[in-house]
Amino acid sequence: MSKNKVKIGLVGFGVVGSGVAKILLENADSIEKRTGIHLELSRIVDLDTTSKRPVEVPKGILNDDLDALLNDDSIQIVAELVGGTTVAKDIQLKILRSGKHVVTANKALLAKHGNELYAEAKKNNRCIAFEASCCGGIPIVSAIRTGLAANNISAIYGIVNGTCNYILSSMTSNDEDFAVALKQAQEKGYAEADPTLDINGGDSAHKLAILAAMAFGYDISLDNIFIEGIEDISIDDIRYGKEMGYALKLLAIGERNDSGKISLRVHPSFIGLSSPLARVDGPFNAVSIFGHAVGQTMYYGRGAGMMPTASAVVADIIEVAMGNSMALFNSQKTDPLDSSLDSIDNLICRFYIRLMVTDAPGTFAMIGKILADHDISISGILQHEAHDENNTVPAIITTHPNRQANVTKALADMEKLDAVQSKPFCIRIVDVPEDRIDD
Amino acid sequence: MSKNKVKIGLVGFGVVGSGVAKILLENADSIEKRTGIHLELSRIVDLDTTSKRPVEVPKGILNDDLDALLNDDSIQIVAELVGGTTVAKDIQLKILRSGKHVVTANKALLAKHGNELYAEAKKNNRCIAFEASCCGGIPIVSAIRTGLAANNISAIYGIVNGTCNYILSSMTSNDEDFAVALKQAQEKGYAEADPTLDINGGDSAHKLAILAAMAFGYDISLDNIFIEGIEDISIDDIRYGKEMGYALKLLAIGERNDSGKISLRVHPSFIGLSSPLARVDGPFNAVSIFGHAVGQTMYYGRGAGMMPTASAVVADIIEVAMGNSMALFNSQKTDPLDSSLDSIDNLICRFYIRLMVTDAPGTFAMIGKILADHDISISGILQHEAHDENNTVPAIITTHPNRQANVTKALADMEKLDAVQSKPFCIRIVDVPEDRIDD
Repeated sequence: MSKNKVKIGLVGFGVVGSGVAKILLENADSIEKRTGIHLELSRIVDLDTTSKRPVEVPKGILNDDLDALLNDDSIQIVAELVGGTTVAKDIQLKILRSGKHVVTANKALLAKHGNELYAEAKKNNRCIAFEASCCGGIPIVSAIRTGLAANNISAIYGIVNGTCNYILSSMTSNDEDFAVALKQAQEKGYAEADPTLDINGGDSAHKLAILAAMAFGYDISLDNIFIEGIEDISIDDIRYGKEMGYALKLLAIGERNDSGKISLRVHPSFIGLSSPLARVDGPFNAVSIFGHAVGQTMYYGRGAGMMPTASAVVADIIEVAMGNSMALFNSQKTDPLDSSLDSIDNLICRFYIRLMVTDAPGTFAMIGKILADHDISISGILQHEAHDENNTVPAIITTHPNRQANVTKALADMEKLDAVQSKPFCIRIVDVPEDRIDD
Repeated sequence: MSKNKVKIGLVGFGVVGSGVAKILLENADSIEKRTGIHLELSRIVDLDTTSKRPVEVPKGILNDDLDALLNDDSIQIVAELVGGTTVAKDIQLKILRSGKHVVTANKALLAKHGNELYAEAKKNNRCIAFEASCCGGIPIVSAIRTGLAANNISAIYGIVNGTCNYILSSMTSNDEDFAVALKQAQEKGYAEADPTLDINGGDSAHKLAILAAMAFGYDISLDNIFIEGIEDISIDDIRYGKEMGYALKLLAIGERNDSGKISLRVHPSFIGLSSPLARVDGPFNAVSIFGHAVGQTMYYGRGAGMMPTASAVVADIIEVAMGNSMALFNSQKTDPLDSSLDSIDNLICRFYIRLMVTDAPGTFAMIGKILADHDISISGILQHEAHDENNTVPAIITTHPNRQANVTKALADMEKLDAVQSKPFCIRIVDVPEDRIDD
């Protein structure tokens, strides 16, 4: 690849595509000063060639002719910013087969069809670079691939979805309901009109699949990840958690336990306020990575948005243009996860349980007996003297560490009690690992 | 460079050298799985060949013969971990001239003789990689060089010295004097027997010189950096700051102001508790970097220690072995700083001023007049009703933003007052920039 001038193509001229075009057009000189390479945006392909974008591109470079881009041998790197998992997949395959490198922000596509795409890239001696697929502008992919390459990584604990973090932060600081916080997030542009994939944890799982595959060296599919979203979180849970000294975050967690099994999960998590992750608020993302040599490291920044995501796309374009990515992106060997995957049933952690109970003699005795029957030890109890018209009161129980399978059974037994008015609601209390260095 | 097996030499087998040897010997397989490259530690040179180290190395690879290493053409990369700026410089030059790449953690050497060494590297078509020189295991060099390469970087705000941060954190949380906290830091291994270079800000300045040169694209020498250490911080200042909602940190700051001038400074700084940097405690380091596209990003982790530093050295060895570093490390063009350097006199910020004043009528009027004469507006005043035997009481004044030059003159005038018992003590109140994205 020429070390001086590298021609770039874009497929997809939406929000992120506009940001990438803006950087390539406005920052070409400063990037050349920094890297010695002049990046030239030479073609943009989009079905919509007429809408006004937040950037003006040179006349004639925007059209809807993908084939013309694929057949243009002067273009060496193409950013696929179409999104989705069908058309985008076809486009990436075509780009690779036409002998060009792919740069993408498409986490859903990589999480779903990554292996097929990486194989096609290898076959064509090209690479797929995807810094922008995880946590927007935070250089987290390169941190795992290169910065921490000397480490055995034992755990990833991440706040990787800005929409959820914005909603949970708003609920916490404004003492407001989920629905109110969601509406506000939509008004401010931090949540989509259809926020499902964000709030149900799916988007976080896509990112976890990508990061955990690199960190642990396994093929990871979405099916391997236990996923719970934030849809059912009530302001009461946040209030009670706050009272007990916890912040509520949607965490994406990948962990290698002492017997070498890999646990992969996305769920709402109460974390102690002393953890650096507890202080990550609003639309920001942060990922803590634990390595055997480095201990705890954390990476913080904006996980979404036009310019932060474009920052990561262009960083990848630069890496590929410099010839740095070929070795990196095609070198890691991954194993099938299969028997190394730990089941969520084996998860040992503390639990927060909220029960809506009838305030009557014997209620707590029955609940206590169920917990005892399942060998679950109570760590704390919280019941305020407030009753609704049905004489129902929320009772909070926190447990000492126990297996998920036990707790699941205990919750099912509790639900059967007459005194328990609705499905018990449970949130995991997550102890973010201590910073530990193996020397 | 062979993509399969790469032979590594070490010069300097002290603390960090031992950590590097440990990782290279124990993690060769996992690194090969991740990168496709087998790293072989083939020679270690140290004058001391007999002391027991925390790692056992294969028989015969440790000796005191530098020339034998230099003449061994099978070795492609050498980590210089001797430290200091005299012998180490000579060794790095010899390594480069023998056609090998250099990996180093030696911030003092790079800050002092970087340009000469980089020129020698270019001449020999080899590179000097120095991730480990700044903030130990935090991959901050690679974040600036690659992850944020698409950005115009406007500012670096960093806690880059773990010794100082440990001391200030201990003083704050244990309400103890500087001397007590320093002694404890020494006992725990967080401060050297001679802590001068850490606590006087010199070490932070070395790191700022390296990071700011990359971020802003200028040749930066230590002389360009305004430096104040933490030696004179009293527990009183920390207490008063806490009362006003500030945490005290030694910050290394590099900033490009609106007119394009570069401000470079290391000094104790009161920062608001809502800044992510305010929550970085103990021996940890963190660096916030502000880019025009990405907004605020922050990188957090252990800034020193055998294994965290070794983690960064080996990360660099891997990058160089993969052939990734040549382009990166030899490509950036830097300009002379000269007329672009902003003087500390032009710094505009808020100030915390502690005066030991005689409790007598008219004292505050005189102080107020001096501030008014210099156009300095008072933001807050704090004087507790406690007096020592000399009828002296500490009075704290905080100012609205003003120029350093004005405040310096006002402080000199105040010192001349009979009612002011000792040199006025001043700490800058630093408003860490808002996260701002230019779109």
